[in-house]
Amino acid sequence: MKVGIFDSGVGGLTVYKTLKKRYLFCDFIYFADTAHLPYGDKSKKTIISYSSRIVDFLLKKKCDLIVCACNTASSVALPVIRKQSPVPVYGVIESAADAVRSLKKVAVIGTKLTIRSGAYERAILRRKKSIKLFARPAALLVPIVEEGWADTDVCRRAIEIYLADIKKWKPQALILACTHYPLLKKQFSRYLGASVKLIDSSSIVKTLDAHIAPSKRKGKSSFFVSDDPEHFGAVARDIMGLDVGKVKLCTKYL
Amino acid sequence: MKVGIFDSGVGGLTVYKTLKKRYLFCDFIYFADTAHLPYGDKSKKTIISYSSRIVDFLLKKKCDLIVCACNTASSVALPVIRKQSPVPVYGVIESAADAVRSLKKVAVIGTKLTIRSGAYERAILRRKKSIKLFARPAALLVPIVEEGWADTDVCRRAIEIYLADIKKWKPQALILACTHYPLLKKQFSRYLGASVKLIDSSSIVKTLDAHIAPSKRKGKSSFFVSDDPEHFGAVARDIMGLDVGKVKLCTKYL
Repeated sequence: MKVGIFDSGVGGLTVYKTLKKRYLFCDFIYFADTAHLPYGDKSKKTIISYSSRIVDFLLKKKCDLIVCACNTASSVALPVIRKQSPVPVYGVIESAADAVRSLKKVAVIGTKLTIRSGAYERAILRRKKSIKLFARPAALLVPIVEEGWADTDVCRRAIEIYLADIKKWKPQALILACTHYPLLKKQFSRYLGASVKLIDSSSIVKTLDAHIAPSKRKGKSSFFVSDDPEHFGAVARDIMGLDVGKVKLCTKYL
Repeated sequence: MKVGIFDSGVGGLTVYKTLKKRYLFCDFIYFADTAHLPYGDKSKKTIISYSSRIVDFLLKKKCDLIVCACNTASSVALPVIRKQSPVPVYGVIESAADAVRSLKKVAVIGTKLTIRSGAYERAILRRKKSIKLFARPAALLVPIVEEGWADTDVCRRAIEIYLADIKKWKPQALILACTHYPLLKKQFSRYLGASVKLIDSSSIVKTLDAHIAPSKRKGKSSFFVSDDPEHFGAVARDIMGLDVGKVKLCTKYL
């Protein structure tokens, strides 16, 4: 089985790592739209157009299943790319909403576009109307992670500013609605306390388990980017601790 | 006279404001490539391709003169777009290099691509071989400004981290080789001390003065973006204190 995963950059590798570990037998094609990153502060129309071109690419590569690892694209582009694709397309929102359905007070942080779209709220309230929600953007945490500054007081102070009101509000869980945020789990827990459950996109495996049949073969992974393969490889190694091998450049969909 | 100015986003408005104030009689066309921003961490080839499409657009709008307000594009794309354009194209590097030619120790901060390109070093050393240079990237200051966090301790601490070695090195001037940095002049001076001269892209007027003939008419300005005109207008107002009126969307060059 061949699984296509896409994101604007290295962030979606947090999802890739989870899937690769669980579905060792699958082949993976990862596409990072590095020529257009970041997605989080662009318009809905533009993100739909970028996502749609990537899905075309993954379909031509004969993927049996596509995972949109990017929260922003999942928030705004999923209905369009689902219509476009003859194979199933999964976003990262539904499974996060499933993971909090038994709770009463849930906070969400993400990019500006993700939060403005209201997609997480809609998915959660569709499951249970009585859940109380608190959503806010936390844009700067992405470039802080990419700068390798997760362990600096710049990061600590940014988290304090973004999460101060959420901490006072005392949520039971915080949804990390951006692929980079799982890399700051330790920092979030330190600030909010260990009792606040952190939900990230790896909850998607609960959805995928039903659609992926185990096998004994060993899968392989390929990585494609729309710009600067060397930089992608270096950042994957430095901030994700992942050796992605030779990254291929694909500018056909620019 | 019609002057075209381009940048990846709102940052180049710092250059626009300087030019508009000095050349009240000129018409201005400002193009912000918001669908592709930021330029600072993409590849040289991609930035050349984006810049070239924008120059096409400005030429079709009949500009008599083009200013590349983006330091990254000035660093890597200028030779190509100069060949392409029948009207003069000015970048922001040469004039900054002119402004420090009488000094002995000069520091430069900019995006990763600007610093990696070595364009400022080359331009400065071409003028005077004995100038000692210290260049380093300071990527996170751009999203910090865009988040409206210039006056937070997140910004103060980021400046301390980026400039600590430069401060110890005791430069006579610091070149602010990114359009967003002039918005942090107060913060840079507070940290480095008032004796360190801050050079920004507004030094370009010294170059342009020779090419722009004064007149008594009153010019008008138009603003174009490749994505999300409303967001551009809002950020221009919030972080640049500039009312840009109705911003037009131009996706033809995406």
